[in-house]
Amino acid sequence: MTTTQSVLVDGEWRPSRAPVKTFTAVNPMTKTPLPDIYPVSTWEEVEEAVRAGAEAAVALRDVAPESIALFLEAFADGIEARTEAIVNMAHRETALSVEPRLRSVELPRTTDQLRQAAGAAREGSWRHATLDTARNIRSMYGPLGGPVVVFGPNNFPLAFNSVSGGDAAAALAAGNPLIAKANTGHPGTTRLLTEAAFEAVQATGLPAATVQLLYRTSHESGEKLVSHPLVGATGFTGSRKAGLQLKAAADRAGRPIYLEMSAVNPVFVLPGALEERLEQIADELFASCSLGTGQFCTKPGLVIVLDSDRSEAFLAALADRFQSPPGVLLGEGGVWTISEGIKTLRDHGAVLIVGGEPVDGSGYQYANTLLRVSGDQFLAHPHALQTEAFGVVSLLVFARDPDQLQAIARRLEGSLTGSFYTHTGGEDDVLYSRIAPEVRQRVGRLLNDKMPTGVAVSPAMNHGGPYPATGHPGFTAVGIPASMLRFGALHSYDNVRHHRLPPELQDKNPVDRSPAERMWRYIDGVWTQEDAA
Amino acid sequence: MTTTQSVLVDGEWRPSRAPVKTFTAVNPMTKTPLPDIYPVSTWEEVEEAVRAGAEAAVALRDVAPESIALFLEAFADGIEARTEAIVNMAHRETALSVEPRLRSVELPRTTDQLRQAAGAAREGSWRHATLDTARNIRSMYGPLGGPVVVFGPNNFPLAFNSVSGGDAAAALAAGNPLIAKANTGHPGTTRLLTEAAFEAVQATGLPAATVQLLYRTSHESGEKLVSHPLVGATGFTGSRKAGLQLKAAADRAGRPIYLEMSAVNPVFVLPGALEERLEQIADELFASCSLGTGQFCTKPGLVIVLDSDRSEAFLAALADRFQSPPGVLLGEGGVWTISEGIKTLRDHGAVLIVGGEPVDGSGYQYANTLLRVSGDQFLAHPHALQTEAFGVVSLLVFARDPDQLQAIARRLEGSLTGSFYTHTGGEDDVLYSRIAPEVRQRVGRLLNDKMPTGVAVSPAMNHGGPYPATGHPGFTAVGIPASMLRFGALHSYDNVRHHRLPPELQDKNPVDRSPAERMWRYIDGVWTQEDAA
Repeated sequence: MTTTQSVLVDGEWRPSRAPVKTFTAVNPMTKTPLPDIYPVSTWEEVEEAVRAGAEAAVALRDVAPESIALFLEAFADGIEARTEAIVNMAHRETALSVEPRLRSVELPRTTDQLRQAAGAAREGSWRHATLDTARNIRSMYGPLGGPVVVFGPNNFPLAFNSVSGGDAAAALAAGNPLIAKANTGHPGTTRLLTEAAFEAVQATGLPAATVQLLYRTSHESGEKLVSHPLVGATGFTGSRKAGLQLKAAADRAGRPIYLEMSAVNPVFVLPGALEERLEQIADELFASCSLGTGQFCTKPGLVIVLDSDRSEAFLAALADRFQSPPGVLLGEGGVWTISEGIKTLRDHGAVLIVGGEPVDGSGYQYANTLLRVSGDQFLAHPHALQTEAFGVVSLLVFARDPDQLQAIARRLEGSLTGSFYTHTGGEDDVLYSRIAPEVRQRVGRLLNDKMPTGVAVSPAMNHGGPYPATGHPGFTAVGIPASMLRFGALHSYDNVRHHRLPPELQDKNPVDRSPAERMWRYIDGVWTQEDAA
Repeated sequence: MTTTQSVLVDGEWRPSRAPVKTFTAVNPMTKTPLPDIYPVSTWEEVEEAVRAGAEAAVALRDVAPESIALFLEAFADGIEARTEAIVNMAHRETALSVEPRLRSVELPRTTDQLRQAAGAAREGSWRHATLDTARNIRSMYGPLGGPVVVFGPNNFPLAFNSVSGGDAAAALAAGNPLIAKANTGHPGTTRLLTEAAFEAVQATGLPAATVQLLYRTSHESGEKLVSHPLVGATGFTGSRKAGLQLKAAADRAGRPIYLEMSAVNPVFVLPGALEERLEQIADELFASCSLGTGQFCTKPGLVIVLDSDRSEAFLAALADRFQSPPGVLLGEGGVWTISEGIKTLRDHGAVLIVGGEPVDGSGYQYANTLLRVSGDQFLAHPHALQTEAFGVVSLLVFARDPDQLQAIARRLEGSLTGSFYTHTGGEDDVLYSRIAPEVRQRVGRLLNDKMPTGVAVSPAMNHGGPYPATGHPGFTAVGIPASMLRFGALHSYDNVRHHRLPPELQDKNPVDRSPAERMWRYIDGVWTQEDAA
């Protein structure tokens, strides 16, 4: 007899109180339910977590950044200590490969991200401490004053997990408590990660409700959660439909919400690049499309070329590659959303080249799918033809001429990325100069000669972009310290007595380390690691 | 016969096309309409401005920051050249004094702000250029890609004016075109300022639609404007009611909107401070309350003291000062909103001490009004008793004991500011340590021994705060360069060929000036004015 798994609320692993119902995860490779049972929490339980989180936010005011850094590092250590259990559970829940994906790529990315967040919390430069010493006005980013709720996606059970992923790391490093709402595709993975988190909370003496976990709520409770007046902010990664529902609720209540939703990530392959390295680009494009069985936020779903024999050859080369056997999707819902997405594309004139059908196998599978459409057709239905199909699906658009290529670029919706493949000798540079600026203003990250699926945890990364890729064009979900700004409130201190200022804003640099490790502060117009004069 | 004033659309001063109707401003000192007639634009005209602004945004991509800086400086010069006309018009439209307020305070603040914005545009540090040279990923804030719409408030006809105020300066300096929607209280002032702006646009060769002006639209058109897909963002300063209506429209469309709405700006006067300097604080409080006839966003509308004989004496001292003759309000609407605000306060238990009635004079006036309420009563109706009354109105809350003082602090809504007056010898420090952290998380700017009405244009200023003071706790409406971040999109460049990068992200520092004037960039973890290695 399997018991229902405990939630983590207010510092205690405990059975969910009067759960609405229960659910299980499903092994996508076998389509069979996994044994563990998880509760769907009532609104009362959700609100209990909110209240405990709000109290934790108060207690965290008195916790030094060093303690938060030690916690994040202990959390990373705890994940590593559980590596085998975590990657095996994640494999069962998501069908992602243990090796290399989960053990050698995603888990190290997760712990690296947590350690980078620890470093940022310790060092403090993320706060943009600004001192106007002549007027004695000083400002910095501080915590939001309430817990941050994170809804993680299904496609990265570790690195974007609600409790251990980029949003969680950023929220915690900025000094906020976390309420993790597990993705229901991988509740067991999330539970194991939360065990590591909570052990680290206890080991480092942080407030017990610094990390809380709920597995699932009703949609109505989710909307009430993100709009609760005690919630500091919400981070959401997932589908546009779910994201916009939460956004509407949070917006009405004036609560900040950061969304990382769907995107088609256009890739422009210009004529000179096709002349030069058609096969290589076809390889790169298929590899990028099929990574994680196409279930990446940055998967290139739209490829734009100029109509030519060479472009037809490119399509043929891609078609060859798309014939390969499909991987297993994250779940049954994936088959449905891909089918729906492809139906929308075909209903608006996209022509099927390869695939287009679910695969009836032991696991959830959908044939790799390649489609084509003319530039005229695209311009007749630009919105529908930018429908995301979250799998190994890509649509090639054949533009008649450079004017139409530009017109297409001007109809692109906000996307996370936009990529350009061009001739290495500069033969495409005139066309690039014309098209790239159009794409620049419609995407968060512009790439050259590179597919968008690699999202480095770099300070210069933008995993974001204009609506509807996200809810705001000024923030990134990946990259330390920039991603932390989403979870900071701007705090100005005007004429506040010196001993009452937070250490970060006092004259002396607060980080008692070697000069190169000190906090960067903007003092009287100069970025410096020195003390204020 | 007076003709209807022209709008500025798509680079041309021209009669409004088929205006819905017309309106005039009113001299608040005489309650008589001013002679000039202004058009209410149709949606077609609004959309024409949006389309022209979108084209200007495209053209501005190719404009160097230096040209934008020269434009902003020429704009400031043009305002100064028109000083007498502007301050006299503003006086007639708002009743604010020509001297010192308009000529010696607000106009210099306005031109100083524009010149600071010019400096920030020229120097570029506001972009937070971030170079990860090892991975060749580089990012910075760039323009939004569409025009910024600014709705200015009635209370600062120059320094927060839709065309010349802080929002406009920040939006333009960040490289965006501007669509100014005049405050209908001072259309003539806005027209004169726009003449200066447009002359500067022409003199410096910027795209003609970089600055556009509309005087008024229907509410429906206003909502369509802020949610238009070609609009980059909106800045709004004004009432909560109007702000939330625009926010709802913009949010639904996923368009960024920044709001600076109402706030009660709590002031805590702790016992030791009252023992020490009761009369002085009463002077400061009344001066702050009555500045601009109480029509400041940062006016202290809520004063919290501990119940004591000394606090009663403080109330009496304030009551004396509030007996002074009232100033003239910005308009008839002011009388109404003050009346409504005071009615709400009294309906929830606030007791009138002084004032409470409109004054029947030649101009729009309302008696200076002081009210009191017990801590118990406040805690019974914390929301209603934080209703803003936009005039010389303040409510004193008498808390029973420190516990109740803290409970009150915990029920404060988001406000722009929170102030503390405490004993200079430290006698209030224990109580301060308990209460200030509660206030800190509920306000944008925390002050000591100072009233909140002075909002310095400092890099460390936060004229912002948690909802409902604004729409987002992370942004400031005042202070260069921080206020510019509202109007920037985060642009990452991944593996982009070096010659295609914007100058700000190339290895060489783009500012060809003395080392101390170069752009600050964050290169491989170090803030520097040097070139990348």
